[in-house]
Amino acid sequence: MVNRVEPKTLPGFMELSPTDQIKFNQMLEIIQKSYEKFGFLPLDTPVIESSEVLLAKAGGETEKQIYRFNKGDSDLSLRFDLTVPLAKYVAEYYNELVFPFKRYQIGKVYRGERSQKGRYREFYQCDIDIVGDGELSIINDAQIPSIIYNTFKELGFDSFVICINNRKIFNGLFRSLGLSNNSIDVMRIIDKLEKIGKEAVRSELSNIGISSATIDTIMNFISISGANDEIISKLKAFSINDELFLDGVQELSDVVKYIRSLGVPEEFFNIDLRIARGLDYYTGTVYETFLSDFRNIGSVCSGGRYDNLAEYYTDKKLPGVGISIGLTRLFYQLNTANAIKVNKNSISDVLIIPMDSLDIEACLGASNILRKFGINTDVYLESGKIKKKMKYADKWDIPFVVVIGENERIENMVSLKNMKTGEQQKLSIDEVVKTVLSNK
Amino acid sequence: MVNRVEPKTLPGFMELSPTDQIKFNQMLEIIQKSYEKFGFLPLDTPVIESSEVLLAKAGGETEKQIYRFNKGDSDLSLRFDLTVPLAKYVAEYYNELVFPFKRYQIGKVYRGERSQKGRYREFYQCDIDIVGDGELSIINDAQIPSIIYNTFKELGFDSFVICINNRKIFNGLFRSLGLSNNSIDVMRIIDKLEKIGKEAVRSELSNIGISSATIDTIMNFISISGANDEIISKLKAFSINDELFLDGVQELSDVVKYIRSLGVPEEFFNIDLRIARGLDYYTGTVYETFLSDFRNIGSVCSGGRYDNLAEYYTDKKLPGVGISIGLTRLFYQLNTANAIKVNKNSISDVLIIPMDSLDIEACLGASNILRKFGINTDVYLESGKIKKKMKYADKWDIPFVVVIGENERIENMVSLKNMKTGEQQKLSIDEVVKTVLSNK
Repeated sequence: MVNRVEPKTLPGFMELSPTDQIKFNQMLEIIQKSYEKFGFLPLDTPVIESSEVLLAKAGGETEKQIYRFNKGDSDLSLRFDLTVPLAKYVAEYYNELVFPFKRYQIGKVYRGERSQKGRYREFYQCDIDIVGDGELSIINDAQIPSIIYNTFKELGFDSFVICINNRKIFNGLFRSLGLSNNSIDVMRIIDKLEKIGKEAVRSELSNIGISSATIDTIMNFISISGANDEIISKLKAFSINDELFLDGVQELSDVVKYIRSLGVPEEFFNIDLRIARGLDYYTGTVYETFLSDFRNIGSVCSGGRYDNLAEYYTDKKLPGVGISIGLTRLFYQLNTANAIKVNKNSISDVLIIPMDSLDIEACLGASNILRKFGINTDVYLESGKIKKKMKYADKWDIPFVVVIGENERIENMVSLKNMKTGEQQKLSIDEVVKTVLSNK
Repeated sequence: MVNRVEPKTLPGFMELSPTDQIKFNQMLEIIQKSYEKFGFLPLDTPVIESSEVLLAKAGGETEKQIYRFNKGDSDLSLRFDLTVPLAKYVAEYYNELVFPFKRYQIGKVYRGERSQKGRYREFYQCDIDIVGDGELSIINDAQIPSIIYNTFKELGFDSFVICINNRKIFNGLFRSLGLSNNSIDVMRIIDKLEKIGKEAVRSELSNIGISSATIDTIMNFISISGANDEIISKLKAFSINDELFLDGVQELSDVVKYIRSLGVPEEFFNIDLRIARGLDYYTGTVYETFLSDFRNIGSVCSGGRYDNLAEYYTDKKLPGVGISIGLTRLFYQLNTANAIKVNKNSISDVLIIPMDSLDIEACLGASNILRKFGINTDVYLESGKIKKKMKYADKWDIPFVVVIGENERIENMVSLKNMKTGEQQKLSIDEVVKTVLSNK
């Protein structure tokens, strides 16, 4: 007698039904194909790295969440993002690569966060990065929104906005206002604007000792809005004579120009000067993406430009720009809202059902033919009533059922049922191929 | 100044160059599409499970290899195969499934084995299983070789053999010889036949106390060979009157019959009575697959029939049949032998190169058009000499390069270079689309 254990999946770990998994996989594949369309190369790094490597850049909150453990003499950790493994990879294989190095990676990462609805401890990230050797053209920063645009279009969304900003503008502004030393605090506060409102932002800024006149300038600055060209004009007119600020404005202006060359319609990208995005990692262009119908779920694709990817591993200066889609969370939220837009609900195009065990060989033969034409085909091989067999097709949403019984065998025909319309016809197997392919 | 850490990947963890990753991903995708063609549903279970669940069936060697650790109060382990997670899944969601449940899972598993060439601590398994509720038709056992056949054909192999046996035949034989109690020992010894030879097998059998007459019967039995029908005739003629034995012979005979119905050519499957495959897990049909040109790498796809998948989690009887491809090891071995057969060596179909920064907008416009036609297109955006830009295309094996300079812009044409033939032509962008698509 065996000792039974309750079969339970850990909290915070997504485990989907096959039906949802089919949808998830389609989203993942669309993202992958979209990344490939822009020439990004695939990479697949280990889930486990040495802790020394993975945690080279020690960091408070992240480090607490790490899955870290010993195996033999080794101090190991599970990756918590795909950026640190990329930094390691580029530094490790620097001599074998050519630059700019464009890679995508889609894989699971691990963070032992407190478990709550819609937050996962194991989740897929879908990342792209373009890494330059020493320098990297600003035009890459314009490529990124065009990739976001294409990806979310391919995912079936018609209404979303890619918000763009440049950190140099903030940093230059702060420098010119004598706020360089507490720029991180100031950004942190500004970042809360949407959540807590203007007045609360003013008072928090005042609390950290910023003068009323300076707060006025900041608030004026972050209230700059309008169409993209309007914002750029206002920025150019904003009387700040700081090199970094001017550089940032020029970059932003270039990025907008090249986004247009890349054919992204104007309504899909907005300069948004309030976006700060991370606190010390990004150094130039930053991105956030909001689905118009699901603004509440926050940014679905974020990233930005950084000065130096791999400084913890190499003295080579490797600037880059990248984005990440947190697919597990996105899938959870869209699926909950019944808003996943994919074409296929089933793996099999056809289920073949033998009426009787004598019909099985004919069914196997038919399945061969259908598969040769690229039609995904399942055969129901167990005994049982036709109703039970039909239920199998229903459950997995298989669009066509072929039934073969004695009559069909004698006539060398099959019965084809369209499960959506209920329509049933007696056809030759060639006609079945045609019908199924034309409905695919 | 940052403290630098040497960027190093752990030993026993595969990390490929982008060029190899492209090949790896194609193999993975071919396997996935092949599994889907037979109607298997996708599943993706967590890499981490509670140790209690994952190790419900305690087991010597395996348990020592497990990556096991604590996080907070939780005793966690990384999955070491995809079968245990399937058992958990089917038991956990039994009421939400219909049977037979056919699933594929492709994912990484973890075993802290001693590191050696070609052995990995993190590796991909590509599994399919068909799980019945209470019972499962023997015809499923014939489906499996037809899936192996299709998968390895799709992977580009023309010469391989699927070896098939049935454990009941052995078990019945042993029972009739009074060897039931040490059948596992006997099988373990027989399993070494190819490695150590007949005489050594005889002497090892003798060492565990088996009589010379019984050894004769065993050796006679395992020397049965010939064409599939010959073997079945010899088995039917073998004077063993044990129910299990006869049942096994009948199953094997049925499996061969239905494999033929499924159109697998005779030269691709062989009954091989020496295959024991695992020691106590499989209970009926067992499979091993050998690539004829790479027999030395051992079985590349193995599996079999089991009586009860999830007995550690549920009192439901869930018989099944399945196989697994260890893709990481297979890739390593084939790649080392330069024997990967895939179509694509690059992600990008085209690299667009601007002669000068003034040509960049024209290049971006051209890239849009190519991508709209489904052509994966990269644009070289950095400054530098044309030679350096061409080197990028060479390095990533991009088959076509489009160059746009002042002349091209004026003429509204582009220069297309076929990187394989070296041929260069001035074409309209529409002609480029046609040329590239016809070469895809």
